[in-house]
Amino acid sequence: MLIRQVRVTPIAFRDPPLLNASGIHEPWALRSIIEIEIADGRVGIAETYGDQPMLKVLEQAKTLLADLTPFDLNSMEVRVRKNIVSTGGGAGVQIELAPGSHTNKNADKVISALEVAMLDLQGQILGLSVCDLLGGTVRDAVPYSAYLFYKYAKHVDNPYPADAWGEALTPDQIVRQAQTMIAQYGFKSIKLKGGVMEPVQEIAAIKALREAFPTLPLRLDPNANWSLETSIAAAKELDDLLEYYEDPTPGQIGMAELARHCDAPLATNMVVTTMEEFKRNASTHAVEILLSDHHYWGGLRATVSLARMCEVFGMGMSMHSNSHLGISLMAMTHVAAVIPGLTYACDTHYPWQEEDVIKGGRVRFVDGSVPVPTTPGLGVEIDQVKLAVLHQQYLECGIRNRDDLGQMRKYDPDFKGASPRF
Amino acid sequence: MLIRQVRVTPIAFRDPPLLNASGIHEPWALRSIIEIEIADGRVGIAETYGDQPMLKVLEQAKTLLADLTPFDLNSMEVRVRKNIVSTGGGAGVQIELAPGSHTNKNADKVISALEVAMLDLQGQILGLSVCDLLGGTVRDAVPYSAYLFYKYAKHVDNPYPADAWGEALTPDQIVRQAQTMIAQYGFKSIKLKGGVMEPVQEIAAIKALREAFPTLPLRLDPNANWSLETSIAAAKELDDLLEYYEDPTPGQIGMAELARHCDAPLATNMVVTTMEEFKRNASTHAVEILLSDHHYWGGLRATVSLARMCEVFGMGMSMHSNSHLGISLMAMTHVAAVIPGLTYACDTHYPWQEEDVIKGGRVRFVDGSVPVPTTPGLGVEIDQVKLAVLHQQYLECGIRNRDDLGQMRKYDPDFKGASPRF
Ligand SMILES: [Mg+2]
Ligand SMILES: [Mg+2]
Repeated sequence: MLIRQVRVTPIAFRDPPLLNASGIHEPWALRSIIEIEIADGRVGIAETYGDQPMLKVLEQAKTLLADLTPFDLNSMEVRVRKNIVSTGGGAGVQIELAPGSHTNKNADKVISALEVAMLDLQGQILGLSVCDLLGGTVRDAVPYSAYLFYKYAKHVDNPYPADAWGEALTPDQIVRQAQTMIAQYGFKSIKLKGGVMEPVQEIAAIKALREAFPTLPLRLDPNANWSLETSIAAAKELDDLLEYYEDPTPGQIGMAELARHCDAPLATNMVVTTMEEFKRNASTHAVEILLSDHHYWGGLRATVSLARMCEVFGMGMSMHSNSHLGISLMAMTHVAAVIPGLTYACDTHYPWQEEDVIKGGRVRFVDGSVPVPTTPGLGVEIDQVKLAVLHQQYLECGIRNRDDLGQMRKYDPDFKGASPRF
Repeated sequence: MLIRQVRVTPIAFRDPPLLNASGIHEPWALRSIIEIEIADGRVGIAETYGDQPMLKVLEQAKTLLADLTPFDLNSMEVRVRKNIVSTGGGAGVQIELAPGSHTNKNADKVISALEVAMLDLQGQILGLSVCDLLGGTVRDAVPYSAYLFYKYAKHVDNPYPADAWGEALTPDQIVRQAQTMIAQYGFKSIKLKGGVMEPVQEIAAIKALREAFPTLPLRLDPNANWSLETSIAAAKELDDLLEYYEDPTPGQIGMAELARHCDAPLATNMVVTTMEEFKRNASTHAVEILLSDHHYWGGLRATVSLARMCEVFGMGMSMHSNSHLGISLMAMTHVAAVIPGLTYACDTHYPWQEEDVIKGGRVRFVDGSVPVPTTPGLGVEIDQVKLAVLHQQYLECGIRNRDDLGQMRKYDPDFKGASPRF
């Protein structure tokens, strides 16, 4: 059962022109696919970030599993923490929006990728689902939210036919996007990615969504692109409309000050992304709801521990997402299925992706939820042909680090990256 | 694989006349043995407290496992937390010394007992050791400390022939006890249970131990029986002698004040025994080292999470013990084997017990450590004949709740339970 090979395959997949606080998604999103092979030829899989710095540390990690089995999770963690260290600073301009690109999270990110693949192997060897290995499910299906984006109809570079979603820049268009997505997936919560338009327009969009969906919980995430004053003023209009108010304004201090001026609970995947920040939040009381993400919090087991900490510190738990494919979605689903306190619908970008690397077609949602697989391991396998196609796209797309700001300047050369912009 | 029966058997075993802050051990120590049987007849086992209130909540918990399998740890936790609540207050006079008797820990104690037996079953079903189920070992053997006690030669009630250890009331006798115990077990750390004699005598005992064992780490645990002034004064003499100074004075506030006046790190199993106290300690900075104990911290998985929290909050980890037998020792060994940050030798009362309920004789130590079993499950099984004997002793001994104070008054009718006494 010894591990004999670790393979890391960078991939690129089509990503729509989704707008956010720092700019706009490029036409290709990057990820990497991890395959860990043991002596009998069985392979465990995982999906994680695909930017250049991440690929570099994954390369360093490959040799650390020598003489370990898939059951040696703790030894793997010790070795990674000893050998994979911060390379200093963020990976680029995307620090705020994609906390996974912080290099101070290198060890946690690598542990997560290796752990998921090792748990997948454990499950295959034992005939158990990953959620069984984590103590068994407390829910049979994991609810996700409809993740709405302001977007253009097509990419400025026009590298492939435009997506079917069309333009979404007005409250009406956002409501239509929600209706389409909910018709297809059955989601029972709605999140709008904000920080894009003038706050008054985003507030109007939330009001339009409330009118169109009178009973669904709503969330707004301006990704720290609103000043404290703007956030406080907006809170007066949003307090009664939002399930939670996600990262409107930058920094834990700003969020703590905002908390004293609004009723809606504050949520974050920006000001609590490390244990140090978690500790600090215990005294600043900035946010009440933590958006977890196993990809940078150190894996599925660490996410379970994080959930216990949230309970201790009286915090609620939801889940953050970056652009991702089906392997990540299944890992997210397994861990969300075993955490009693994860009572909010999780975020996922999955509806925005058309491609995937898994066998048997894309993951199916039932009534807005992903049914928890009961098959061994993660419950998904790699389609090597599809993986080869997406790897070829990676080789050809020319993108090596996400740059939403640079991409936005192709549309608007005067676009300012300054944050908060409003 | 459904669970079809939960059996709880209270037992009593011979316990030497060991002195502590609240009095003296009675001639019989109580525990309970948990057996969880699944449909195919396999049985998973655990050992926990055996006092009356604990037996009562274990009785309530028996019905909670209906339609669960041994893999449903999270559902079991949810059900126990919902159904087993605090009955208010402590179990008796032993609150301070045996945190397991707090009824506010009822759910955590019950979860722990059920979880260990369920993990034992998982291991048997899968052919894996409990430590494998917890992510695999980071050490092959778990070091324990030589746990020294002041003691009388025999019990006042004289219910059975006196133990072989003899009297230990002077520094010389304590050193001889350490020599005997270390010759038999090979321990490489020493802990003296204090709070019994005048502090000056206990300091003299520590100095005598330092002289006899120049290189072994030493610990002293007065169990909060010293005033703040006494503890500060003693620190001046002990600072250079102790690996850690365990619970000399009562309360987190007292310990925090003491921390400002001594160099030796403070350790506790008294002022941080719940998550609420853990949180408080993060601001009081009272103790640096937490003595974990899976029996009241919610089980083996919760202990692993607690270890992650200790890391986050910069605390070291050691392990607490009450009088216990081999099943508890094996559970302690499995969890200690998987926690990288558990760098201190664990406490155990095991050398003080002559009896046990496990097959194949008592657990063996090698060079002061318990080798981590690699056989399926916990690696120990119940000898039903021995269990029947110890249950019979329970029925006949008349003790239903530990009462070291009452016992002490049989020796000295004027003995005062006041704490701190010195
Ligand atoms: Mg966010
Ligand atoms: Mg103690």
